[in-house]
Amino acid sequence: MNKLDVTEAIILLKKEKDLTWEAIAEYIGMSPVWTTSACLGMNSCSEDVASKLIEFIGLPSEAKAVLMAYPTKEWDKSIPQDPLIYRLYEVVGVYGETLKEVIQEKFGDGIMSAIDFTMDVDKEENPKGDRVILTLNGKFLPYKSW
Amino acid sequence: MNKLDVTEAIILLKKEKDLTWEAIAEYIGMSPVWTTSACLGMNSCSEDVASKLIEFIGLPSEAKAVLMAYPTKEWDKSIPQDPLIYRLYEVVGVYGETLKEVIQEKFGDGIMSAIDFTMDVDKEENPKGDRVILTLNGKFLPYKSW
Amino acid sequence: MNKLDVTEAIILLKKEKDLTWEAIAEYIGMSPVWTTSACLGMNSCSEDVASKLIEFIGLPSEAKAVLMAYPTKEWDKSIPQDPLIYRLYEVVGVYGETLKEVIQEKFGDGIMSAIDFTMDVDKEENPKGDRVILTLNGKFLPYKSW
Amino acid sequence: MNKLDVTEAIILLKKEKDLTWEAIAEYIGMSPVWTTSACLGMNSCSEDVASKLIEFIGLPSEAKAVLMAYPTKEWDKSIPQDPLIYRLYEVVGVYGETLKEVIQEKFGDGIMSAIDFTMDVDKEENPKGDRVILTLNGKFLPYKSW
Amino acid sequence: MNKLDVTEAIILLKKEKDLTWEAIAEYIGMSPVWTTSACLGMNSCSEDVASKLIEFIGLPSEAKAVLMAYPTKEWDKSIPQDPLIYRLYEVVGVYGETLKEVIQEKFGDGIMSAIDFTMDVDKEENPKGDRVILTLNGKFLPYKSW
Amino acid sequence: MNKLDVTEAIILLKKEKDLTWEAIAEYIGMSPVWTTSACLGMNSCSEDVASKLIEFIGLPSEAKAVLMAYPTKEWDKSIPQDPLIYRLYEVVGVYGETLKEVIQEKFGDGIMSAIDFTMDVDKEENPKGDRVILTLNGKFLPYKSW
Amino acid sequence: MNKLDVTEAIILLKKEKDLTWEAIAEYIGMSPVWTTSACLGMNSCSEDVASKLIEFIGLPSEAKAVLMAYPTKEWDKSIPQDPLIYRLYEVVGVYGETLKEVIQEKFGDGIMSAIDFTMDVDKEENPKGDRVILTLNGKFLPYKSW
Amino acid sequence: MNKLDVTEAIILLKKEKDLTWEAIAEYIGMSPVWTTSACLGMNSCSEDVASKLIEFIGLPSEAKAVLMAYPTKEWDKSIPQDPLIYRLYEVVGVYGETLKEVIQEKFGDGIMSAIDFTMDVDKEENPKGDRVILTLNGKFLPYKSW
Amino acid sequence: MNKLDVTEAIILLKKEKDLTWEAIAEYIGMSPVWTTSACLGMNSCSEDVASKLIEFIGLPSEAKAVLMAYPTKEWDKSIPQDPLIYRLYEVVGVYGETLKEVIQEKFGDGIMSAIDFTMDVDKEENPKGDRVILTLNGKFLPYKSW
Amino acid sequence: MNKLDVTEAIILLKKEKDLTWEAIAEYIGMSPVWTTSACLGMNSCSEDVASKLIEFIGLPSEAKAVLMAYPTKEWDKSIPQDPLIYRLYEVVGVYGETLKEVIQEKFGDGIMSAIDFTMDVDKEENPKGDRVILTLNGKFLPYKSW
Repeated sequence: MNKLDVTEAIILLKKEKDLTWEAIAEYIGMSPVWTTSACLGMNSCSEDVASKLIEFIGLPSEAKAVLMAYPTKEWDKSIPQDPLIYRLYEVVGVYGETLKEVIQEKFGDGIMSAIDFTMDVDKEENPKGDRVILTLNGKFLPYKSW
Repeated sequence: MNKLDVTEAIILLKKEKDLTWEAIAEYIGMSPVWTTSACLGMNSCSEDVASKLIEFIGLPSEAKAVLMAYPTKEWDKSIPQDPLIYRLYEVVGVYGETLKEVIQEKFGDGIMSAIDFTMDVDKEENPKGDRVILTLNGKFLPYKSW
Repeated sequence: MNKLDVTEAIILLKKEKDLTWEAIAEYIGMSPVWTTSACLGMNSCSEDVASKLIEFIGLPSEAKAVLMAYPTKEWDKSIPQDPLIYRLYEVVGVYGETLKEVIQEKFGDGIMSAIDFTMDVDKEENPKGDRVILTLNGKFLPYKSW
Repeated sequence: MNKLDVTEAIILLKKEKDLTWEAIAEYIGMSPVWTTSACLGMNSCSEDVASKLIEFIGLPSEAKAVLMAYPTKEWDKSIPQDPLIYRLYEVVGVYGETLKEVIQEKFGDGIMSAIDFTMDVDKEENPKGDRVILTLNGKFLPYKSW
Repeated sequence: MNKLDVTEAIILLKKEKDLTWEAIAEYIGMSPVWTTSACLGMNSCSEDVASKLIEFIGLPSEAKAVLMAYPTKEWDKSIPQDPLIYRLYEVVGVYGETLKEVIQEKFGDGIMSAIDFTMDVDKEENPKGDRVILTLNGKFLPYKSW
Repeated sequence: MNKLDVTEAIILLKKEKDLTWEAIAEYIGMSPVWTTSACLGMNSCSEDVASKLIEFIGLPSEAKAVLMAYPTKEWDKSIPQDPLIYRLYEVVGVYGETLKEVIQEKFGDGIMSAIDFTMDVDKEENPKGDRVILTLNGKFLPYKSW
Repeated sequence: MNKLDVTEAIILLKKEKDLTWEAIAEYIGMSPVWTTSACLGMNSCSEDVASKLIEFIGLPSEAKAVLMAYPTKEWDKSIPQDPLIYRLYEVVGVYGETLKEVIQEKFGDGIMSAIDFTMDVDKEENPKGDRVILTLNGKFLPYKSW
Repeated sequence: MNKLDVTEAIILLKKEKDLTWEAIAEYIGMSPVWTTSACLGMNSCSEDVASKLIEFIGLPSEAKAVLMAYPTKEWDKSIPQDPLIYRLYEVVGVYGETLKEVIQEKFGDGIMSAIDFTMDVDKEENPKGDRVILTLNGKFLPYKSW
Repeated sequence: MNKLDVTEAIILLKKEKDLTWEAIAEYIGMSPVWTTSACLGMNSCSEDVASKLIEFIGLPSEAKAVLMAYPTKEWDKSIPQDPLIYRLYEVVGVYGETLKEVIQEKFGDGIMSAIDFTMDVDKEENPKGDRVILTLNGKFLPYKSW
Repeated sequence: MNKLDVTEAIILLKKEKDLTWEAIAEYIGMSPVWTTSACLGMNSCSEDVASKLIEFIGLPSEAKAVLMAYPTKEWDKSIPQDPLIYRLYEVVGVYGETLKEVIQEKFGDGIMSAIDFTMDVDKEENPKGDRVILTLNGKFLPYKSW
């Protein structure tokens, strides 16, 4: 069993048992975004979280070590094509230089970490059409000079 | 004068007059992220905003039409290289499928618009290292069937 | 069963039963273009449409959930090669800047949505050679400033 | 003077004289889409059309030969980035196989010409948001066997 | 059975029965180049031609529908590597602009169709080394203005 | 003066003096295709041909050495975009494997040279639309074993 | 004056005054690697370091702000070609998975920072050929779960 | 059994027997980095080392020849995506030109070998966060002139 | 059985019987380089050579036709990664223009054939480290003008 | 003056004075291949060689430091297009795996250096067409284990 097998098993069981990412996340006590990414094989679980995941979803016990393994994070297309994901890529392209200006004006020379990092998705109800609120929260890392 | 000339003039005058994006944004009554992107040539200004920008920064009057022109939005490298911008690209790569799952579970089949869209940068002070809070807010657009 | 399996089953049964996309579309009460794209796995069906598709084509019942699942929209080659599809790509390349000028002159700064979007194919009989009439209909989305 | 010089001159004079593509097209008796593409250097004019363009826009007389020259049609990025143009590319990616199925079911084995081809843009007013109607009209060319 | 299966069956039977493309072409009454391309899955057969191919080569009867199906024309490498095919790509690269000049001087603004198109290979015996004579014959399509 | 300068000078003088490639070719006693390619900088002239070209077109005398220099043959885009040139690329893609089969059946294992090579363009008048006849003539080079 | 201009000025003056990176680094009190990268425009200087650089190398005073500006870090070729730099790229390719295994076995799931990071070059004299000792020192950043 | 099979067997047995790369390396008397790379199929073992590996890990005897075989060193993505490996690629991009300057100032015109080369990973404990110390040690190879 | 199957069978039998490319080459009376390339599927054998190969290595009789078949010559990565092969690619990159200058100075405008071509590898023993001597021998082909 | 300027000056003076690479090489006492590569900016000269080059060709004295500078070795296209250079690239593609097999059988696991490396071009007169003899001579570097 590898990360891919476990992800496929989760997707199948989630559909059969009619679970949601939100419900899974609540049970294991983590956020929906992180929980989903761990189930898709893009983050590693602590032993405790892995045990709860197995219990709640009904995964075989050998899935535990796989969920705890450190993943190799890779993606399929260097430029994403699915419209939902492409729009995020487009935001990085259109606003990348802008974010560099604004972040570095506020914080100095450095970057926002993508490792010491969390992210959440919220829904803002709106009569003109609901809105997706995506919040990225990353530690600022100043460049070191030596 | 084209978008590039106006951007270069803004960068120069901003340095000479020791302005910040924040101060420019406050004067023209827009957010710092949008203001910076318009100054970098990635968004078009209303006539009123263009006039205020020219006044505050001290741009020549022919810059007004240029600031109001509709930009062609393009970026230099299909995979960004500057570390600050690359980290955002990496977030899209690592969490793209995850966001698709979580957003579509919450909203149904569709996407978050990158056009009917706003974005803000905040600073969260933290003794272990300050954190960058990036908030994306886009209208949910359901796929149409016909 | 995943989207690919269902598509293969549809293609097979369509050939065996000598169905056309047009007949399938008429039965389910949707347009031929949308119907074909849903059968090729590029759009998700409502429960009602999925049930009718299964009935008319004779798909196994587990295909219903698959037809209703939200697809990941990806394509094989970033520059298409099949001559029919390449010609459309060429039209985007040759006329892209032109369409940007003409649409934005008519509507202001913004884009034509590819999500709130429909498309139809018609045949114009012509003694010098019949003509393909392709009509794209997308909501205009103005850029937001904030 | 080459195609690029003439395009730049047209863009400048159009802005100075506050012309629209629509008005230019009407004066020369051609459609707005074709007129814009010829002005952007992507189509060649007949002598008559070139003369009218020069007269109406106020171009120097040496522009005539340039407008009549047969262009080399090339575009900058193999995958477009400007959101308006990218959405069209996305439509080709998402619906390419679908269009192949639907067109070839209607017409037989062959393609829609991008040479013996016209295109128009219309505006459909709509209280929920105006809609862009894009109509492509291309001769069907059957594959030859020999 | 799909196009690939039929091609593999043809290649196998052709080797077993020691047939040549020339002999197959003669039997079905088509040219060797077209015949080979149809057998390699790059062109669709009329019913009559498909029947003769099946008869002469000894293909199973279900190959008929496959031979008549409209192919998706794609190739493996965007820059070919096999030396015989690369030399043709090199000719297009080295002489592309030249051919554009010469064809458009002779015919006006337009292209040579690759759809309403035939091609033949001949052998010219020559004491210094035989020569390959490749003849491409395509309808000239003038650009339309509208 | 380099190859590019000479090409630009030729294009300019050709337009001013209203010459055709055909007329230039006839004067220097070479074929139109080769003549055009040499003028575009893709082939080197013998001293005699260079002298005649200079005389007929009215180039400055220092162009002679440039016309005789051995060119570096390179092209701009690895996949061509101009429709006339793309169609030729498409022919290589669609028919590459076919030509390999047919040529090697006729000649044995080897290639058609693109160096010991000539090419001609002819016009076949046809009431249904004139046809472009492109003839490539290359020496067959058998692979050597050792 | 931008980063590029300052780099060119430094390279010129360094050659004229026969300075070494080592001597420059010693004068400004920083390491040779960091000093060189700041002079090549890949790191930003503190005000104090910028002043010393200007003084020691003899740069014009407007170079100070440029040296202190936060750079956009980009490189020319996505796969380096110069043999010295390619060998480092090759090490990342050949040993990338190995380093992931070894670092994560020692430290847990996370990465070595390229921002909170220093690097040094030493020379180990050796009768069989001197050796380059390259030491990378980066903070370990554990992945966060949330 | 090929390199890939042996690597998979090692990964499996290592997990089952709860071994570490460090322990394996110690047993066979080689460094952890080299040991890991040999187990991942990126280096060839001497007969003695291969025997010890088989014994310690419990591999089948036919793995011996495979471990001794000379590997083809290839990697999956020309630009790595896993964050740990990408950071190393980024270091090569950002500091490549710097390292060229510093190494060639110290050693003359030449390169650091990636063949006559060793590498080690150490852990530096640090209250602000442990640090990864990566040491590359390669023979300097001067360019030859002839 | 195709080229790939035969290559795999040869590699296996060669290892089992402890043969060398040199010994195989000697038995079949061809050079080691050509012999290896034919065994790796990159050249076609004459009937006589194919028979001897089968006999010496102990291949099944159906391998004969496969060894005699004309190969499609393709390689996996457009920029090679294995260090031994990359170094050759680097030589072409670094010395390509140089070789063009030196060969064309000696021979006139033309190329060195890669078809009418042989290559050999020799070992020069040397106390400072043995040297690989690679000799390429290709017919000079002058460009034709017409 | 940089490497590019010096190369252009050399090319110009070489043409004016009707020098050959062979004559230049003989005067400075180096081989024609190395001499040409140093003149094209791909290798650095010793002081003595630089002085002789300047004297013989008649370069300005500031060219000396430039000729002695350590070059950054880069090439324009990752896949070469000029036919003479492409044929060498093709040889690496077609025979790369073969050379790896033959060299490693003769020398063990390692590579042929492209740094401790020389190359020569010879002409073999032959009634059937002269032949280019290209000899590469590189030190064998065994992989190190540690």
